[in-house]
Amino acid sequence: MSAALENWQTGFIGLGLMGRPMCLNLLHAGAELTVYNRTHSVAEAMQQPHLTAVASAAELAQRVNIVILMVADTAAVESILFGPHGLSSTLRPGSLVIDMGTTAVTATRQFADRLCAKHIDFIDAPVSGGEIGAINGSLSIMAGGSADAIARAQPIFDVLGKATIHIGEVGCGQITKAANQIIVGLNIGAVAEALTLARLAGADLVKVREALMGGFAASRILEVHGQRMIDATFQPGGKVTTQHKDLTQAIELAAEYRQQLPASELNRALYSELIAQGQDELDHSALILALEKYRKT
Amino acid sequence: MSAALENWQTGFIGLGLMGRPMCLNLLHAGAELTVYNRTHSVAEAMQQPHLTAVASAAELAQRVNIVILMVADTAAVESILFGPHGLSSTLRPGSLVIDMGTTAVTATRQFADRLCAKHIDFIDAPVSGGEIGAINGSLSIMAGGSADAIARAQPIFDVLGKATIHIGEVGCGQITKAANQIIVGLNIGAVAEALTLARLAGADLVKVREALMGGFAASRILEVHGQRMIDATFQPGGKVTTQHKDLTQAIELAAEYRQQLPASELNRALYSELIAQGQDELDHSALILALEKYRKT
Repeated sequence: MSAALENWQTGFIGLGLMGRPMCLNLLHAGAELTVYNRTHSVAEAMQQPHLTAVASAAELAQRVNIVILMVADTAAVESILFGPHGLSSTLRPGSLVIDMGTTAVTATRQFADRLCAKHIDFIDAPVSGGEIGAINGSLSIMAGGSADAIARAQPIFDVLGKATIHIGEVGCGQITKAANQIIVGLNIGAVAEALTLARLAGADLVKVREALMGGFAASRILEVHGQRMIDATFQPGGKVTTQHKDLTQAIELAAEYRQQLPASELNRALYSELIAQGQDELDHSALILALEKYRKT
Repeated sequence: MSAALENWQTGFIGLGLMGRPMCLNLLHAGAELTVYNRTHSVAEAMQQPHLTAVASAAELAQRVNIVILMVADTAAVESILFGPHGLSSTLRPGSLVIDMGTTAVTATRQFADRLCAKHIDFIDAPVSGGEIGAINGSLSIMAGGSADAIARAQPIFDVLGKATIHIGEVGCGQITKAANQIIVGLNIGAVAEALTLARLAGADLVKVREALMGGFAASRILEVHGQRMIDATFQPGGKVTTQHKDLTQAIELAAEYRQQLPASELNRALYSELIAQGQDELDHSALILALEKYRKT
């Protein structure tokens, strides 16, 4: 139990695939949590000692001085911060908001500026490691913000993740996450094409994966998502629809700097095809299914 | 010193970036080597105890019963095996040929059949790990062939590599290498786009790479080639021209099975652009330079 966490009133917003196990880890570490979820029944059903479910972000903000956000997208973050019954209407000066979801960089910088005007501090601290990492408290945390704010959040990060890297000022966490999602999507695409070819040409995929893990092709994606492709188990993990959203954000960020990302754009188009086929809720390793259309029969 | 290696007369053909350090490792392990290189002066210049340079593959074949090939491409393998003064004209029945280069799968199967008719055994055993792996004897070896032939070659593989995986019959080593080269090329492309975006958006690339290594984006390519991109050092390593050739072979193999590989085809097109710009001798991590054309200024 962490002495630091006991002394805080911490709020957590967003009890999805990632947020729920993150909350449980904070509770186990000794935190008092106030939680809010857009679908209120999800928050109410999560009955735990030291956990209180409230009906709005504004109500949550009256009870806490640190708020963690783990919601779906940039629009959801904006709504929770500045919408009707939003956090900023009632959150006290000197509070800290930590956005651990994957949010657009430019919007993140604007949110931080608007909160700063109310003397509320902000950190963008998106994560990698997926549901497994959330459950095991082994997330990789990419943080942007002031050194003081990150020092204040460190006991929380220590519970949720195995490593926190302070990349730079506000926005730098989300820049890193965008880079992360490019690599994740493209590495999944790489493993999908490699295993598709090896299967067609008649090699044993279990042995192929084992051999590839020994050389320059080695990656976390080959290890984890390669195995999912071999097993053809596509339970998320990270969803197709989330990967598509994150790639879109990365591509849009690049466009702000007049940079095209040709491989990321192709990768996103393959994810779009999966969504069009109704496979949006599968794990992002299901990209291998999109290659079936590229075979002439 | 390996007792097994001392009892053999081993031939080595191809003294390039990879072949030369592989020869030195075999010599240090106690092998007697006869070497042949298309440019004879390279072989003659490599003066070492227990090493004899000869002027043709046919001359080499008269002196040895195991031959390792590490030459540039499929055409070079065919020429050395079956061309004028080729190995097959003089190699004794019961000998073993080990092709450790990256050679087309269908041609590999045909070469093995033609040698089999002369009672010469064949293994395809391409490698991953690059020049560093060749120097350190830490290559990852992907082997196709009979279990007997691979057992015979094992003492050689143990000197040259840190792991040998027997994937399946002849051709399976090259299938695995094709899969490897797809992943290597595409993972380089992924890291190139990710770091390009992070740089433009203003993040510290050293910290970005460090953070990404902690999550699902982690890969050998991010570790090694990501660092080369940050340092902008593009000394090979593995050359642009080799990566392009290997991707072409993988795409052609897929086409034999009527399969398109859209991301691999885009990746190869980016490598083609580097070659067109005269950057063919740079390390394959130089793919990041091809993205400059995708920025509107």
